[in-house]
Amino acid sequence: MTQYKPQTRAYAAQQATAPLAPFSFERRVPGPNDVAIEILFCGVCHSDLHTARNEWHNTIYPSVPGHEIVGRVVAVGDAVKNFKEGDTVGVGCMVDSCQHCATCAEGLEQYCENGFTGTYNGPLFGGENTYGGYSSSIVVSEKFVLKVSHTDKLAAVAPLLCAGITTYSPLRQWGVGKGHKVGIVGLGGLGHMGVKIAAAMGAHVVLFTTSPDKKADALRLGAKEVVVSKNEDEMAAHANSFDFILNTVAASHNLDPFIALLKRDATMTLVGAPEFPHPSPGVFGLIMGRKRLAGSLIGGVAETQEMLDFCAQHDIVSDIEMIRMDQINEAYERMLKSDVKYRFVIDMATLG
Amino acid sequence: MTQYKPQTRAYAAQQATAPLAPFSFERRVPGPNDVAIEILFCGVCHSDLHTARNEWHNTIYPSVPGHEIVGRVVAVGDAVKNFKEGDTVGVGCMVDSCQHCATCAEGLEQYCENGFTGTYNGPLFGGENTYGGYSSSIVVSEKFVLKVSHTDKLAAVAPLLCAGITTYSPLRQWGVGKGHKVGIVGLGGLGHMGVKIAAAMGAHVVLFTTSPDKKADALRLGAKEVVVSKNEDEMAAHANSFDFILNTVAASHNLDPFIALLKRDATMTLVGAPEFPHPSPGVFGLIMGRKRLAGSLIGGVAETQEMLDFCAQHDIVSDIEMIRMDQINEAYERMLKSDVKYRFVIDMATLG
Repeated sequence: MTQYKPQTRAYAAQQATAPLAPFSFERRVPGPNDVAIEILFCGVCHSDLHTARNEWHNTIYPSVPGHEIVGRVVAVGDAVKNFKEGDTVGVGCMVDSCQHCATCAEGLEQYCENGFTGTYNGPLFGGENTYGGYSSSIVVSEKFVLKVSHTDKLAAVAPLLCAGITTYSPLRQWGVGKGHKVGIVGLGGLGHMGVKIAAAMGAHVVLFTTSPDKKADALRLGAKEVVVSKNEDEMAAHANSFDFILNTVAASHNLDPFIALLKRDATMTLVGAPEFPHPSPGVFGLIMGRKRLAGSLIGGVAETQEMLDFCAQHDIVSDIEMIRMDQINEAYERMLKSDVKYRFVIDMATLG
Repeated sequence: MTQYKPQTRAYAAQQATAPLAPFSFERRVPGPNDVAIEILFCGVCHSDLHTARNEWHNTIYPSVPGHEIVGRVVAVGDAVKNFKEGDTVGVGCMVDSCQHCATCAEGLEQYCENGFTGTYNGPLFGGENTYGGYSSSIVVSEKFVLKVSHTDKLAAVAPLLCAGITTYSPLRQWGVGKGHKVGIVGLGGLGHMGVKIAAAMGAHVVLFTTSPDKKADALRLGAKEVVVSKNEDEMAAHANSFDFILNTVAASHNLDPFIALLKRDATMTLVGAPEFPHPSPGVFGLIMGRKRLAGSLIGGVAETQEMLDFCAQHDIVSDIEMIRMDQINEAYERMLKSDVKYRFVIDMATLG
């Protein structure tokens, strides 16, 4: 473990109203099961902004966001079996969970009955702080480290660790595949991954957007049809026809027009958590076709590895715009205006 | 067909603000596939009141409500195979559907792609009127007539045709059985059937109510536990523990405290359609345990027969209060005050 230096450079928010700025701290000395990783790239997720600005009212400061991490292994503990120095790896939204509850045993660490430990902002809903990927290095228990095999597009792989798995998991859970008509609502960081992944799974993908100018892009990304969701006639033409809808929009919006497009017994899964509630979905819409509204949170560790392998096999990465670390505050402002196609990724070599 | 007289006595609402009053009309002459039924008892469903008073804004007047019908066959068409004069039968919420769509072929006539024909108020969402069970007789296509085998409690069987199947169908759909912890929300006409049926299916039934004085009754009906849903401590003790929750409450209420009680991947099915929307369910609550909110509408014809047979086998009937036909308006007022344990049933011999 001689090569690893715990001193870590980072960008942090010191309070909700402050911009992110340089910050340094010490990572733990790697234990026998730990992997020490030099971070090469880190994707910028909307959750980073929510946390930096305390919009979920649970931020511990200083806050170092970032949970779409790719990097290179620089040291491993004595008991580490699956990784060695020089390996290209990823870290997603979790760095620990209780590892002894029934849910962890099922490989669903994201629903750990005792609460998983987020890659930043510590155990969910409070507890000791953790520092995320806007930093030069990270030390993570082997169990939560992922193998990255398509190493030629590392920066564009980073967003798979959150945006990728968040969309892959519900698509897999609900059995999306050939012959299915699948809707993806919203073409942002999550939505554009949803389109690519659902298309690779063999589904007929329909992208729903409020912006007609996203049509060409959606088709390029793999959608077979694009529906402008404000257009009632376009929507009505798809009534009761979808096997599954993945709704990636975090802004408050009316869910009923999408529920109306589901087939009987079909599900719309929400993966975006709005700051202000959606209008209440109509109960009649659910009752009249035995339809379902569900939620889904990222994915388990094993499933994240499965997703990375699936994406490597299908040559799927995120469409990204690379930024320097010192552009992060500007990137947040642009993200708020949806001015990004489709994910910012920080080049950690610019951390200085 | 000589015995059947089309002239039919009934009670009808002539407009939204008028009380129900005597009315007479002619039923159709039975065709080759029709069964003519002398109505003995008719349950009083909250939908009857909604329709009589045009609360769903789709009532065609005059309106003869009633879709929890039991009676005796008085004549059958030449092509009728499964019923004969003298048989004891039931008719539920539907008297027809298209019979040629894929959904009808699956035996899910309640979701008929071309819209089923309600026992009263005609085809769903408009169309020609039909007259329901607050009447001396009815003529129904054999396909929509059910066999009633526990003939010794006919009046108490009537509510099974709507309240029974509405609760039975989602309990069956979601695989409720032995070893399952199942919540029933609300102890009214639907809820009390849900408790009895879920208990007979072998589930550990927990009844949720806002009225502590319903505890004894719920236990008598088959619940193992009763939780006063306004009591946050009582609710918290059941967090993440339910395999399924059937929510029978039609009044607008906060769904989140119940979603919080579901296990990961578990479902709460709504069978009550509120006049005013529920507060919007929190997306976090669905996301954090991959939970599901669903709807369900009555049940198909074959499933309704299955439910009647199941109830006969387990000696399940509704707890009823018998009324005379001329007490219907008073019964509606009492129903609005939840002053009924647990279903009014009209003795059709009192139609006069």
